[in-house]
Amino acid sequence: MTHTLILLRHGQSEWNEKNLFTGWVDVRLTEQGRSEAKRGGELLAEQGVLPDVLYTSLLSRAIQTANIALDAADRLWIPVKRSWRLNERHYGALQGKDKAQTLAEFGEEKFMEWRRSFDVPPPAIDADDEFAQTHDPRYAGIDGELPATESLALVIDRLLPYWESDIAADLQAGKTVLVAAHGNSLRALVKHLEGISDDDIAALNIPTGIPLVYELDDELRPTGPGRYLDPEAAAAGAAAVANQGK
Amino acid sequence: MTHTLILLRHGQSEWNEKNLFTGWVDVRLTEQGRSEAKRGGELLAEQGVLPDVLYTSLLSRAIQTANIALDAADRLWIPVKRSWRLNERHYGALQGKDKAQTLAEFGEEKFMEWRRSFDVPPPAIDADDEFAQTHDPRYAGIDGELPATESLALVIDRLLPYWESDIAADLQAGKTVLVAAHGNSLRALVKHLEGISDDDIAALNIPTGIPLVYELDDELRPTGPGRYLDPEAAAAGAAAVANQGK
Repeated sequence: MTHTLILLRHGQSEWNEKNLFTGWVDVRLTEQGRSEAKRGGELLAEQGVLPDVLYTSLLSRAIQTANIALDAADRLWIPVKRSWRLNERHYGALQGKDKAQTLAEFGEEKFMEWRRSFDVPPPAIDADDEFAQTHDPRYAGIDGELPATESLALVIDRLLPYWESDIAADLQAGKTVLVAAHGNSLRALVKHLEGISDDDIAALNIPTGIPLVYELDDELRPTGPGRYLDPEAAAAGAAAVANQGK
Repeated sequence: MTHTLILLRHGQSEWNEKNLFTGWVDVRLTEQGRSEAKRGGELLAEQGVLPDVLYTSLLSRAIQTANIALDAADRLWIPVKRSWRLNERHYGALQGKDKAQTLAEFGEEKFMEWRRSFDVPPPAIDADDEFAQTHDPRYAGIDGELPATESLALVIDRLLPYWESDIAADLQAGKTVLVAAHGNSLRALVKHLEGISDDDIAALNIPTGIPLVYELDDELRPTGPGRYLDPEAAAAGAAAVANQGK
């Protein structure tokens, strides 16, 4: 018996469009982002890869993506679970800052270290920064565990317990799982699934809006490479992500 | 301590517009229905009535309504629970039939009995009828309990166990609950909450898209009448519903 896991990265957000570091700031999808989500759902329907349960982060752009995609796939009715552990990487003090300006201010070495190093987080955000989530009601009751900045390594640390306790359990129970999330939380998950090294993960760019499907064995190891439901668009999309901020 | 319950009836669907009996047939919202849902969410935000948890039926039009309203209220991230027990009344063999044609064919007495009597269900739908839900995957695993037609009395019978086991439990735990559902499942719930008689419930019409808010005591009895967040629009909407099919 194989288990099917579908990963879906949200499409363009208002801040992708403006080239700002977003992280945990709760921006919405643009019209282009909504179109990407719809196309993602249509790909699920056309290719008969139909989720039984949905997981999302607590961020609106991932939830909007899932809602639009499931509507297009006629699966709005499936159960939903959400967790901050699927959130985008917390970008610390960079949240709300312009990417090109940050590059100019700190230089390419620092910029690329923050963006793509495995375990160097940006400076922590101040609790009273306008782009901190200090008083955001969605995180009420989980304050003790919440980050003020994160590296990819720290994303993995907070994501894997949830993978084990909830997502893996649903997969083991025979459910096809859709995870609608973010560039870095999905990179963290793919790194774990495929056993990608700390160095090699820097080169992995997951394109937006295109479902990435893994078939997993009973130990939830991939039986082959992940399969994009639109391989040509995925190749073009990954290249575009890699050039962001350049 | 009072407990807050918000009821939200979905807006215009494709079949409301065509004047067909819908029941469990899974039609979508029209653009007007989407606008109603957005306005409903804006009312929640403007008046600070913010749900902590969402309940929906398994029907797309209620789920779309909830998704759009929560987006407008900036509460997309709240937990969601769904159940067929919140579905619209099953309209039996009338599902898919034109209301005006049904009125002409069977006469006003029968028509009004099916639409508004408390305990007379329409004829049951055949399992192989094109508008039956026999092979609909959303109901897989609960076949034994699923209706082939329902009166309002039967809706109450299948709704109240879920009210007690899930919705009431969340209210007792101090959560503000949003129930996004349908004309008849919400009438069933209001009948129970307000202790409306079997005869008087016929006259109750809940307008679409306007949040109806109850404050409940510790026994979950209303401390006063339900409050529409837009009373003028609610009065106009209820009158429009009462005249449907006329």
